[in-house]
Amino acid sequence: MDILARCKAMEAQGRDIIHMEIGEPDFPAPQPIMDAGLAALHQRQTHYTSAQGLPELRAAISQDYQQRFNCPVEAEQILITPGASGAIQLVFAYVLQARKTLMISDPTYPCNRNVAQLFNAQIDAIAVDEQTDFQLGLEAVKAHWHEDVAAVLIASPSNPTGTVSKQQDLLAIADFLASQGSVLIVDEIYQGLNYASAPSSVAGLRDNIFVINSFSKYFGMTGWRIGWCVAPPAYISSLDAIAQNTYLASSTPAQYAALAAFQQDTLAIVEQRRVIFQQRRDLMCAALNDLPLHVPCIPQGAFYIYANVAAVSADSFHFCQQLLEDTGVAVTPGCDFGQQQAHHYIRFAYTNSEQRLREGMERLSVFLEGGGS
Amino acid sequence: MDILARCKAMEAQGRDIIHMEIGEPDFPAPQPIMDAGLAALHQRQTHYTSAQGLPELRAAISQDYQQRFNCPVEAEQILITPGASGAIQLVFAYVLQARKTLMISDPTYPCNRNVAQLFNAQIDAIAVDEQTDFQLGLEAVKAHWHEDVAAVLIASPSNPTGTVSKQQDLLAIADFLASQGSVLIVDEIYQGLNYASAPSSVAGLRDNIFVINSFSKYFGMTGWRIGWCVAPPAYISSLDAIAQNTYLASSTPAQYAALAAFQQDTLAIVEQRRVIFQQRRDLMCAALNDLPLHVPCIPQGAFYIYANVAAVSADSFHFCQQLLEDTGVAVTPGCDFGQQQAHHYIRFAYTNSEQRLREGMERLSVFLEGGGS
Repeated sequence: MDILARCKAMEAQGRDIIHMEIGEPDFPAPQPIMDAGLAALHQRQTHYTSAQGLPELRAAISQDYQQRFNCPVEAEQILITPGASGAIQLVFAYVLQARKTLMISDPTYPCNRNVAQLFNAQIDAIAVDEQTDFQLGLEAVKAHWHEDVAAVLIASPSNPTGTVSKQQDLLAIADFLASQGSVLIVDEIYQGLNYASAPSSVAGLRDNIFVINSFSKYFGMTGWRIGWCVAPPAYISSLDAIAQNTYLASSTPAQYAALAAFQQDTLAIVEQRRVIFQQRRDLMCAALNDLPLHVPCIPQGAFYIYANVAAVSADSFHFCQQLLEDTGVAVTPGCDFGQQQAHHYIRFAYTNSEQRLREGMERLSVFLEGGGS
Repeated sequence: MDILARCKAMEAQGRDIIHMEIGEPDFPAPQPIMDAGLAALHQRQTHYTSAQGLPELRAAISQDYQQRFNCPVEAEQILITPGASGAIQLVFAYVLQARKTLMISDPTYPCNRNVAQLFNAQIDAIAVDEQTDFQLGLEAVKAHWHEDVAAVLIASPSNPTGTVSKQQDLLAIADFLASQGSVLIVDEIYQGLNYASAPSSVAGLRDNIFVINSFSKYFGMTGWRIGWCVAPPAYISSLDAIAQNTYLASSTPAQYAALAAFQQDTLAIVEQRRVIFQQRRDLMCAALNDLPLHVPCIPQGAFYIYANVAAVSADSFHFCQQLLEDTGVAVTPGCDFGQQQAHHYIRFAYTNSEQRLREGMERLSVFLEGGGS
């Protein structure tokens, strides 16, 4: 946040800032989605839907899971939510009742941890590193297990590292948690943005797995605020009741717009964009390889690179500040994502054009030649 | 909810249901708002805004408070939220921390109570009746006061009763709460729908008042999911931090659409609609007066009538069920809103055309002549 505020101040003074700190695709929503949103407004589709969401949209998401990912997800298991934020709140509100501990990795996306704390959860943040691709594995979960753990939350692909958990590893964790009466929450909001292999999902594969997803990142619908949750059948009516109380319903125009997400023309557009993101990742990793910055895990998804700056700085927050001041390149310090070795890491987001990313890498190179911070 | 499900089942069987249970205006969003939403999509305004919301919209709301209601509300005091639901969550998440009790009236809108419980609040539901227009007054607040009360929540106009608290009464409560280190939350989501006097607001009038509002009811923007909160300046940065974690930002197209709400042409449309609601209220109250149902307080706002059925039934839930089965008229039983004399009350919503409301009253009359339930 300090970095963001400083960016704005510098831009207001006329400085040219290269943004590599933004967790939002630089592409707008694909045209077929825009067109569906426009059609919904022309048809005055602006009344409340049910809290669970438009039946057509729930059916479309279910069909997509079955067709593209071979996941046995029924429409009845899907709740449409105001963004993934809405989905995570819904699941937290329900699962963090009898038991109060949420187990997560460190580093991790900070908002989920903070939301859990609003529900008075105890956070067990387990240090992860490059040895496990910065992901929680069964071994770590077992090593830190105790009976108050209501849920384990894993993001795959992960923010800030872009690393991906294997489907079988997630299922093994889910099975262990089932034996302990606990549940697994998998944050799949970057699921479509996968570079190493075809994207997979764990939705519907176990009776104690909750999957969070969103139309924001892969489908470029950030400002529409629309996501979803896939829950085991036994939990649906309870989650529906919470949804009725907490947000009533998701945006109606957004739900109609999202119906176009699974059309072939939309999928063709977002797949093209995925390839562009992959090219940017390759460009960035190659450029960083030529510098004394270390990328411990080549990211397989999302649009982030978590780089180790220990060779050039003992304090990555100061490094980010100095880099911004001296060169106008904005990146995010590790301390935004946890405490585990956070002072050694910075996060690059490649949500910017290839040209701007190249210029950013060039400025970074000059900065490091000058001694860095 | 039982009533709603039964309505749907009966409609699926071809029964003609007269809906007087729906808390949503039957009017769509006014055309200038639709047009602004369409323009936003054409301009591809679908990226995230800041968590606080579009500066232009915050400024427009601030200006409206100053011009129409003489309330000293600065743009910086306004947070745009995903509906009033988002606003109430934001305020609850913040104020229900050190102290854990929320004081509310019974009857009341049930969702707010349920949301507070998700934040582990203790609910003190204070019985109110026609003696105080079903509103909490200073006397009741003082009588039930204890040191764990973090906040008192008052809805004015109220759901389910449509009654309005006087501005000076609310300020007196706020002043008492200030002396106790507590705050007043005023739910003004029906604020524009006021029939007895010009609508007023308490936004910005005390340093311990939070006001919740929404574009849903008066401006007919239900399915867009957009509301706002007016908070004392000292609380803004904390609420902003919670917003960043819980919902990131409100719908961008909805925020641009809402910018048109305060235009003269929009205000002319919603004022016409307010007059129509008032005519419906008068029609309904007159019709109910001719029946052995008692309306203890003529509603001065919102679009609800809370009627006493004690003369014809000892169990208003059963009354609602029987009325629906026998006549196809759907109303809401008092038990949805609390426990205080709930079995004596039913709520009518006049969110239906004058013709349908007349027919509903006719069917009700025949039902009562037949002995009711």
